[in-house]
Amino acid sequence: MSAPRGPTKTDSNPLWGGRFSEATDEFVQTFTASIDFDRRLASHDIRGSIAHANMLAHVGVLTDAEAVAITAGLERIENEIQAGELRFSVALEDVHMNVESRLIELIGDTGKKLHTGRSRNDQVATDLRLFLRDEIDRIEADTRALAKALAEQAERYADTIMPGFTHLQAAQPVTFGHHLLAWASMLERDRERLADCRRRLNRLPLGSAALAGTTFPIDRAHVAHALGFDGLCPNSLDAVSDRDFVIEFLSTASLMLVHFSRWCEELVLWTSPQLAFITLPDRFCTGSSIMPQKKNPDVPELIRGKSGRVVGSLMSLLMLMKSQPLAYNKDNQEDKEPLFDAVDTLSNCVTALISMIGALEAHPAAMRRAAAAGFATATDLADYLVRRGVPFRDSHAIVGRAVALASDRGCDLAELPLAELKGLSTAIESDVFEVLTLDGSVAARNHAGGTAPDQVRAAARALLSTLDAPAATP
Amino acid sequence: MSAPRGPTKTDSNPLWGGRFSEATDEFVQTFTASIDFDRRLASHDIRGSIAHANMLAHVGVLTDAEAVAITAGLERIENEIQAGELRFSVALEDVHMNVESRLIELIGDTGKKLHTGRSRNDQVATDLRLFLRDEIDRIEADTRALAKALAEQAERYADTIMPGFTHLQAAQPVTFGHHLLAWASMLERDRERLADCRRRLNRLPLGSAALAGTTFPIDRAHVAHALGFDGLCPNSLDAVSDRDFVIEFLSTASLMLVHFSRWCEELVLWTSPQLAFITLPDRFCTGSSIMPQKKNPDVPELIRGKSGRVVGSLMSLLMLMKSQPLAYNKDNQEDKEPLFDAVDTLSNCVTALISMIGALEAHPAAMRRAAAAGFATATDLADYLVRRGVPFRDSHAIVGRAVALASDRGCDLAELPLAELKGLSTAIESDVFEVLTLDGSVAARNHAGGTAPDQVRAAARALLSTLDAPAATP
Amino acid sequence: MSAPRGPTKTDSNPLWGGRFSEATDEFVQTFTASIDFDRRLASHDIRGSIAHANMLAHVGVLTDAEAVAITAGLERIENEIQAGELRFSVALEDVHMNVESRLIELIGDTGKKLHTGRSRNDQVATDLRLFLRDEIDRIEADTRALAKALAEQAERYADTIMPGFTHLQAAQPVTFGHHLLAWASMLERDRERLADCRRRLNRLPLGSAALAGTTFPIDRAHVAHALGFDGLCPNSLDAVSDRDFVIEFLSTASLMLVHFSRWCEELVLWTSPQLAFITLPDRFCTGSSIMPQKKNPDVPELIRGKSGRVVGSLMSLLMLMKSQPLAYNKDNQEDKEPLFDAVDTLSNCVTALISMIGALEAHPAAMRRAAAAGFATATDLADYLVRRGVPFRDSHAIVGRAVALASDRGCDLAELPLAELKGLSTAIESDVFEVLTLDGSVAARNHAGGTAPDQVRAAARALLSTLDAPAATP
Amino acid sequence: MSAPRGPTKTDSNPLWGGRFSEATDEFVQTFTASIDFDRRLASHDIRGSIAHANMLAHVGVLTDAEAVAITAGLERIENEIQAGELRFSVALEDVHMNVESRLIELIGDTGKKLHTGRSRNDQVATDLRLFLRDEIDRIEADTRALAKALAEQAERYADTIMPGFTHLQAAQPVTFGHHLLAWASMLERDRERLADCRRRLNRLPLGSAALAGTTFPIDRAHVAHALGFDGLCPNSLDAVSDRDFVIEFLSTASLMLVHFSRWCEELVLWTSPQLAFITLPDRFCTGSSIMPQKKNPDVPELIRGKSGRVVGSLMSLLMLMKSQPLAYNKDNQEDKEPLFDAVDTLSNCVTALISMIGALEAHPAAMRRAAAAGFATATDLADYLVRRGVPFRDSHAIVGRAVALASDRGCDLAELPLAELKGLSTAIESDVFEVLTLDGSVAARNHAGGTAPDQVRAAARALLSTLDAPAATP
Repeated sequence: MSAPRGPTKTDSNPLWGGRFSEATDEFVQTFTASIDFDRRLASHDIRGSIAHANMLAHVGVLTDAEAVAITAGLERIENEIQAGELRFSVALEDVHMNVESRLIELIGDTGKKLHTGRSRNDQVATDLRLFLRDEIDRIEADTRALAKALAEQAERYADTIMPGFTHLQAAQPVTFGHHLLAWASMLERDRERLADCRRRLNRLPLGSAALAGTTFPIDRAHVAHALGFDGLCPNSLDAVSDRDFVIEFLSTASLMLVHFSRWCEELVLWTSPQLAFITLPDRFCTGSSIMPQKKNPDVPELIRGKSGRVVGSLMSLLMLMKSQPLAYNKDNQEDKEPLFDAVDTLSNCVTALISMIGALEAHPAAMRRAAAAGFATATDLADYLVRRGVPFRDSHAIVGRAVALASDRGCDLAELPLAELKGLSTAIESDVFEVLTLDGSVAARNHAGGTAPDQVRAAARALLSTLDAPAATP
Repeated sequence: MSAPRGPTKTDSNPLWGGRFSEATDEFVQTFTASIDFDRRLASHDIRGSIAHANMLAHVGVLTDAEAVAITAGLERIENEIQAGELRFSVALEDVHMNVESRLIELIGDTGKKLHTGRSRNDQVATDLRLFLRDEIDRIEADTRALAKALAEQAERYADTIMPGFTHLQAAQPVTFGHHLLAWASMLERDRERLADCRRRLNRLPLGSAALAGTTFPIDRAHVAHALGFDGLCPNSLDAVSDRDFVIEFLSTASLMLVHFSRWCEELVLWTSPQLAFITLPDRFCTGSSIMPQKKNPDVPELIRGKSGRVVGSLMSLLMLMKSQPLAYNKDNQEDKEPLFDAVDTLSNCVTALISMIGALEAHPAAMRRAAAAGFATATDLADYLVRRGVPFRDSHAIVGRAVALASDRGCDLAELPLAELKGLSTAIESDVFEVLTLDGSVAARNHAGGTAPDQVRAAARALLSTLDAPAATP
Repeated sequence: MSAPRGPTKTDSNPLWGGRFSEATDEFVQTFTASIDFDRRLASHDIRGSIAHANMLAHVGVLTDAEAVAITAGLERIENEIQAGELRFSVALEDVHMNVESRLIELIGDTGKKLHTGRSRNDQVATDLRLFLRDEIDRIEADTRALAKALAEQAERYADTIMPGFTHLQAAQPVTFGHHLLAWASMLERDRERLADCRRRLNRLPLGSAALAGTTFPIDRAHVAHALGFDGLCPNSLDAVSDRDFVIEFLSTASLMLVHFSRWCEELVLWTSPQLAFITLPDRFCTGSSIMPQKKNPDVPELIRGKSGRVVGSLMSLLMLMKSQPLAYNKDNQEDKEPLFDAVDTLSNCVTALISMIGALEAHPAAMRRAAAAGFATATDLADYLVRRGVPFRDSHAIVGRAVALASDRGCDLAELPLAELKGLSTAIESDVFEVLTLDGSVAARNHAGGTAPDQVRAAARALLSTLDAPAATP
Repeated sequence: MSAPRGPTKTDSNPLWGGRFSEATDEFVQTFTASIDFDRRLASHDIRGSIAHANMLAHVGVLTDAEAVAITAGLERIENEIQAGELRFSVALEDVHMNVESRLIELIGDTGKKLHTGRSRNDQVATDLRLFLRDEIDRIEADTRALAKALAEQAERYADTIMPGFTHLQAAQPVTFGHHLLAWASMLERDRERLADCRRRLNRLPLGSAALAGTTFPIDRAHVAHALGFDGLCPNSLDAVSDRDFVIEFLSTASLMLVHFSRWCEELVLWTSPQLAFITLPDRFCTGSSIMPQKKNPDVPELIRGKSGRVVGSLMSLLMLMKSQPLAYNKDNQEDKEPLFDAVDTLSNCVTALISMIGALEAHPAAMRRAAAAGFATATDLADYLVRRGVPFRDSHAIVGRAVALASDRGCDLAELPLAELKGLSTAIESDVFEVLTLDGSVAARNHAGGTAPDQVRAAARALLSTLDAPAATP
């Protein structure tokens, strides 16, 4: 922002300047104005104002004719905004003043009655909740589509065997479908948290006025009903300064982005030539300005990087609210840009992931090859011994020696001669080789949450049913 | 941690060292061991192991006699721990290995069968959920007590008038009870979030084994029921690496501490001689080593400071999980210390606040004196004009001029002569002085959420009823 | 960002698309493009390119004529940018591709030679360092002006007595000038850190090419000299992925904003009617849309709030870099917006503070009145006793009793009768009343760093001399 | 912390309790006491006190005999501490009171004179600086050893070719030595920042007393000299509340841990069987309780995870200081635990890395095999064309087509027949195959910062010389 340094006189603010003897200087005006970003709330501001005006008429503070005039004026302004015709002015500070000012221009003195019984403090709190509620609903729908993409791919790859990693070392074979459902499992928790956040924010602050309520005989339930809120904020001092709903959304969004960073880390790994487990379509990749052979997984890397951005916004808001005394302080103006940025970032990442997940192609042969290396069925051998009566800790030690033996030989466990295996434990019989296959290994983990193909298919279908069910939130 | 630098040979780990040719060196052993802090999970580990052993017997993997022996052994270890008799060993890395090792010492080879069908990965996830569930229940009960203290003080001070601040400038008179209920309102949201967090964490990860499930015919629902879980984690890969519940708790705790930082900022302000609104008993204050006259509000300051600590832990965990591929990685060991610290910090702050809130004494005279300065009833005058037909924006401007006039005179609005007031607007009559009193002002805000004493009393009583109702969570 | 959801074919990227069979879809293009924000680097990009072209001519990779043509083309583009005539295209991804593309349009095939021996990886690292160096220089100059404003006010108020607070309780009298120099002292450390950060970033990454250096016989020192860098980044792999300089700047900026949050907390306190220590000119305040009497210290509150914003950006970058393998990854594109935002936020806050500090008016009478309450000279009495041979700990206890006595009487220490004082300690003589005055108290702290007016005046003048000295950095 | 809930009377604090009528309750005492962690500062506290006592004798406030008695007493306490014989008491709050109390026990009334002319506020600030200075010196020495380990391994592997990655895709061949020097390059910046931080913290706060200085004729330079400080904190109000040095250290430590997280991410990748570039000795790995074949790179994973921990501490401190008014507030007590934890974490990570880096073994064959795949010499081909007169952008496009061709054939660029290459550009001659070899490629990047073995060897040696030079800091 290249702002003028020196003080420049302008007229004192027409809406609150009664007691002021000196005009705000131009730099300060720009520095403190929020219109550059809070204009994004214009439609929500208008919806809130219409509900407020109708309630004032309902309780007799305005005449019906006044409410009709105000509503018509506000709807006209909404149209002007949609058409890009309304000029927002920095001198009018914020979206509320800009809209009200235009209303007075359009309908005259009646417009001056709109602000009766409210304050910008409860007005902006209402706008912000309406905005975030809409955004959560949109993101929830997108997240549902993302979950569907995961479930569909999981069903498709329910039998595809890959190495399951712990510590980035092959641990046990799993199915690729199972892995994708692990991601879906994270996402289902995210959707629950979004719903909790929405439920908690859906209470009306309007009626709190500046901080203490108002002397007019307002009917807050009337406004709540008109705007689709489930209830009222129960305390006016709290309602005008509460930004919990912003922080709770940012916490939820941070966790989602952390989840995405984990998925994207894996996408980047899997597309590296060293693993080559999957291919991402070219449209999610870019090339290099210098290395002509490169095909870089830019989209997953970018999403991974954006996790820091959303967590940064969460940190901002927590620090913003720290130590703030009641009730409203100007500090709170800093709540909007981090929220807007997080909403957009989350939304765009979900959009990008929907198409990327839907489009990824697995390479079952490469996955199976990697799973076959690394003694991934060692646990199966240990379990085999346990079923033959060897206590688990002892069987674990026996298999450890088998692995050392195979490692020295440069072969897999299944390639060790039966005689040598028997030399390690007399409990081993020739049927041991069945449990040492990859397919046998995954099929054996056939319980709720296990990686067996049947479990994966069932889990994928169950998720798809849930997703097709009507949403709990409107 | 003062750790030895050079490598020192010890025996290879008895529980997993089968394939290792070189012992962990002593510094590395200390650096990677978690027993110094995860011993706190010992009781939960034992509860989980007993449920696991009983399930193994239930499905026939263990005999009933084996399960009985294991249970008896584990109960004896629990007693040893309670009595402070169990010596934990760094060489055994963590609480799981320490308990299992002691079990084998106590009951012999049968103890080696306990780890059948599970892994430390699903074991620690289960322990941590059991631990956090207990802590949330304890904190919820304390938080309920804190809400009660607020509601009782709010009822006591329902009529006590103080200045309501915005921007730390007196804005409008409010009642002290109303202010305390604003705090209670924050706390009620915190309690909702704790309940949501508890509900979401109360799913069983056990049965996920290392990452893929197990080949034994386990019955996860049996274990879930025994341990009081509401359901199962639906995916083994996710279940062993999921730390969402830790992050969600830390988010909730961070917001609670941010709330407390705001209350404590106000407590510090109110006890400063410049405001002198309240007195805190001496036991919440300390003196100075150099200034004999000082009585410092140490407890609120310390709580305020602790907000950074809990937010720091949240940031740690978000960063910890960022970019971690599935499934378990050693990084995750770093989840415990921040969680333990946050649990203790939150719990201690709630404990301190319960007694501090219950013990604070307000000074109504000082509060009223401060409310009487600063033209706090200016809005009432504006509303008065509106009720006499002046559009709000015009009435706002008229009152701005009245304030400027009173300010020049060094008097309050109520002290301006009627003639001068009428000079500003002919709508003003002699009944104006009624709305300019503090008591009239607060009484007039008599709607849901408003500051009128009647509303405050009703809200305080409603809250007390809610708090006395049986808890939704067990 | 309202981005199209479905895939839309566009032409494959002309600058790196050689091996690609599918075009980037339109959403992905917008999602991954950086031109919307990195266009801010255009002038720095051009400066870097001119230096690069001249070096290539110097070592014979380009002809002189080619370098002249490229330079002329780039200068023309710079003029187009200044005139707002260059249209940036999202299809060209970033500022580098946009500038290069326009160059080829303007000067033909010679333009295609500019990218010889470099990559966007080292190019953007160079641009970002040039940008940040300029911004630091600008901010340093502003910070110097701010320090000057503080020093001048400190000199003006070197004798003005106010209560020095600890725990927001009056502790000992200090001078207002001394308090302002405490702020200046923070700022001097900030200036040192800015200089350290600048010194460390002023090394040239160009020549690292994509990650490994280049096969052309480049002369990196030539470029460094042309661009004013003090040295070379010593390792190409590190140079293209290093963002330490961004993080170090954000750390420095975070600390500055934390300092400002502390100053602004005090400004808000001091302007509250309860203290009324200072007045801020109207132009730093705004009014209320509902409460006509309000004059809110908006500018300090807003600056206080912005501390969270910059710390959030620091958190973003730390998390962004966490776990990134060498060398360049697309994640790094996320470095720019937080940096730009922090630069602007810091710069605007400094600008606002310069005028606000310069314009604030103290109210010495109110300050003195507040200092006189609260037994602020109790330490002086303790010191008096020590000088008469009472061990400090005993004198501390005696004064504690004197304070309790005065507190019961509702009088100040200086108002206790000599007889009563002597009753507490026989060491007290009639000269005790000299040390109990506010002026005596501050004058007595006459050592380096103490609050005595002479010390304050000397410190203010010393600071002004330092600030008037030529800057260490160019 | 299981703290008692109800108030329990204890005696009023003997060191500051003069004016208090009610004892601190037991829970509050434990909650506010710092002795459990600040006892770590005991030796530094004693060093500071000895210097203070000697200065008081030097200026005549104490007699020489008194100073001698105090010094002897303090030295005896230091011995008691070293021997583990001193019992610290929670009732005495903190390390300062514990030491002073013991001193009075040991030497009687003279001990009560030690606190003359100082306060716990300037005392703890001094202790903390002395502590951190010592720790930085120790960490700096360790970091130097780590840099040496890197340089030595870099020299050893100066010729070892591996794939240089961008976006985790092979980009160009580099040498492993070059890669290790990239890490060393990060570390050299870290060492610079540690030195800057040390320089800035090495100023004496003592003499600031509680906040305003003291009335005794102290000689601060005398103390500074005795304690090895380079100068004085110039303002008493700032000096007692300044925690910049803690935050600056935490910023530096955070960046170091972020660097380490990047190295460790690579170590984990490189030890995965899919890459198998290196082997870590068994002592840096652990096994699995369930999977007998596992050898997990626990130490690098743990270090990677600890990055969140240190960044969390940084965030704690920034949030702690936000909005704190001058001068000292109790909040500041929360500065110590995050600092101690960060010091230990950083120190242990450096220790672990020194041995791990020194012990790692590269697998040149696996590295070369990976470098040979992925068309890593494509840029060399493009450069070749440029040297034959093709503009870079055109040559980039030609090579893009060559890569697509080789990719279709499943062969490397060097395996394409000359005829086909010539079909893409007539500028290609038979000497092209020289530039397509890995060895030719790395050798050609022979400029400052490039990956050529000669450059790597020179850079490694230069670094070793620097490290062997006497340290700049004492």
